[in-house]
Amino acid sequence: MPNILIVHAHPEPKSLTSALKDVAVETLREQGHEVKVSDLYAMKWKAVADEADFTEPNDPDRLIYVAESKYAYAGGTQSADIAAEQEKLLWADAVMFSFPMWWFGMPAIMKGWFDRVFAYGFAYGVGEHNDKHWGDRYGEGTLAGRRAMVIVPIGGRAPHYSERGVNGSLEDILWPIHHGGLFYPGMDIMPPFAVYHTDRMDEAGWHDAVKDLKQRLQGLFTDAPIPYRAQNGGHYDAQQRLKPGLGQGAGGTAMHLVQSGDPEEILRGTVRRLAS
Amino acid sequence: MPNILIVHAHPEPKSLTSALKDVAVETLREQGHEVKVSDLYAMKWKAVADEADFTEPNDPDRLIYVAESKYAYAGGTQSADIAAEQEKLLWADAVMFSFPMWWFGMPAIMKGWFDRVFAYGFAYGVGEHNDKHWGDRYGEGTLAGRRAMVIVPIGGRAPHYSERGVNGSLEDILWPIHHGGLFYPGMDIMPPFAVYHTDRMDEAGWHDAVKDLKQRLQGLFTDAPIPYRAQNGGHYDAQQRLKPGLGQGAGGTAMHLVQSGDPEEILRGTVRRLAS
Repeated sequence: MPNILIVHAHPEPKSLTSALKDVAVETLREQGHEVKVSDLYAMKWKAVADEADFTEPNDPDRLIYVAESKYAYAGGTQSADIAAEQEKLLWADAVMFSFPMWWFGMPAIMKGWFDRVFAYGFAYGVGEHNDKHWGDRYGEGTLAGRRAMVIVPIGGRAPHYSERGVNGSLEDILWPIHHGGLFYPGMDIMPPFAVYHTDRMDEAGWHDAVKDLKQRLQGLFTDAPIPYRAQNGGHYDAQQRLKPGLGQGAGGTAMHLVQSGDPEEILRGTVRRLAS
Repeated sequence: MPNILIVHAHPEPKSLTSALKDVAVETLREQGHEVKVSDLYAMKWKAVADEADFTEPNDPDRLIYVAESKYAYAGGTQSADIAAEQEKLLWADAVMFSFPMWWFGMPAIMKGWFDRVFAYGFAYGVGEHNDKHWGDRYGEGTLAGRRAMVIVPIGGRAPHYSERGVNGSLEDILWPIHHGGLFYPGMDIMPPFAVYHTDRMDEAGWHDAVKDLKQRLQGLFTDAPIPYRAQNGGHYDAQQRLKPGLGQGAGGTAMHLVQSGDPEEILRGTVRRLAS
């Protein structure tokens, strides 16, 4: 059975967000999965990236975080809490991110998990970089073959988060996390599991949310991921811009999704990647 | 002369990000502005929102952050560091956010500034909420009449951040910050000041960046802001969805920009709001 890591960020164990995380843990264990939880508030996770992340800095006089990250990842001198999270990611076949929507993003403590754990050589700076190949990223990379899914309770109302809704679509709000944070190091991204209007949820609403979540967990390895275009899958030119003719008719982030009108070669390659 | 607040997040004073912030401070002071800087790393800003943000919690047994935020803001029992930032925001006529792009967003320490400072009653939960009026937000609110601008050095290359670029457009990546974080409480958002390819910047590149930044600072109160649609400006229906006929032809977040084809009433209202 595939292994599951849940990265969770909420300060209150009795919250809706924490309760949904508990449902996920229980359901996945009942299905036979081994589940690890990184409960960031409970772990008192260090949110802020700084010089203390490197036990033997290469340049103690000037912190170039990217350079120190590369040096420490390669040399095994990362802070122990960072290395431990990287090991959990390598162990996992799917990673869930459980957090409340705060100011249209993750709570700071979870953003700090990305800032610190996604080291150079681990989540970026992977693979060959030259004029034709900008590294293994967006569909390739250290975390390729893993699935990622966001579980996100939201105070606002669903219509406000639709494409024409005043907040913009949930897909566009999550774009930096889904595409930039998770697809970048190679994960396949499942559609988000969102629960709206959480400030007024009643018993029936909770019952529905649990039922829906269980259904999504059931399909975690069989439902289709979001069909983001792979960087090295023939979609982009040498400047990493979408090739002419692709994504026509789609505006904004949607042009970076594989579309039914794409050339057969691209469609085939995408199916091959997602099935691997 | 208008007052300027710069919120800055970088762990290294000798970094490019910090150097650009220093240029901004100096230039604005030379122009006669009073400038305050919230240097979050130097201040050891508390990034993580938790129960310690409220000196006299309403419910010590269960942390509902939104409810405690409302209670503490109304009753004057917020943590002193939060109240101090709110005062700076009220003092300022423009607010600049200076940060390196980390995982397609702000460093955690700055996200935590939003999570904690943008309290209920201050940045959200403002104005009347009923079936027809979902509060004063998106163009209205406590921070209305202020301008906001992001200064963001980026390691990657400019074409990768163009609309057809593999990262998606910078506008879409910044959407949750610009629209969700800054336009929401009422600020007018200036186009971002981005510097690309910062890992290989030479003397000439630095010279150009400083020149460009000074030009943008010169136009801080005269250049046109991004024309986001005001929530209560006649663009959205009662469900807060863009009215039929508006935003046609624009996909994704771009449909939430006022467009030349919009009805005259909307164009007039937008000009009136931005000129006020």
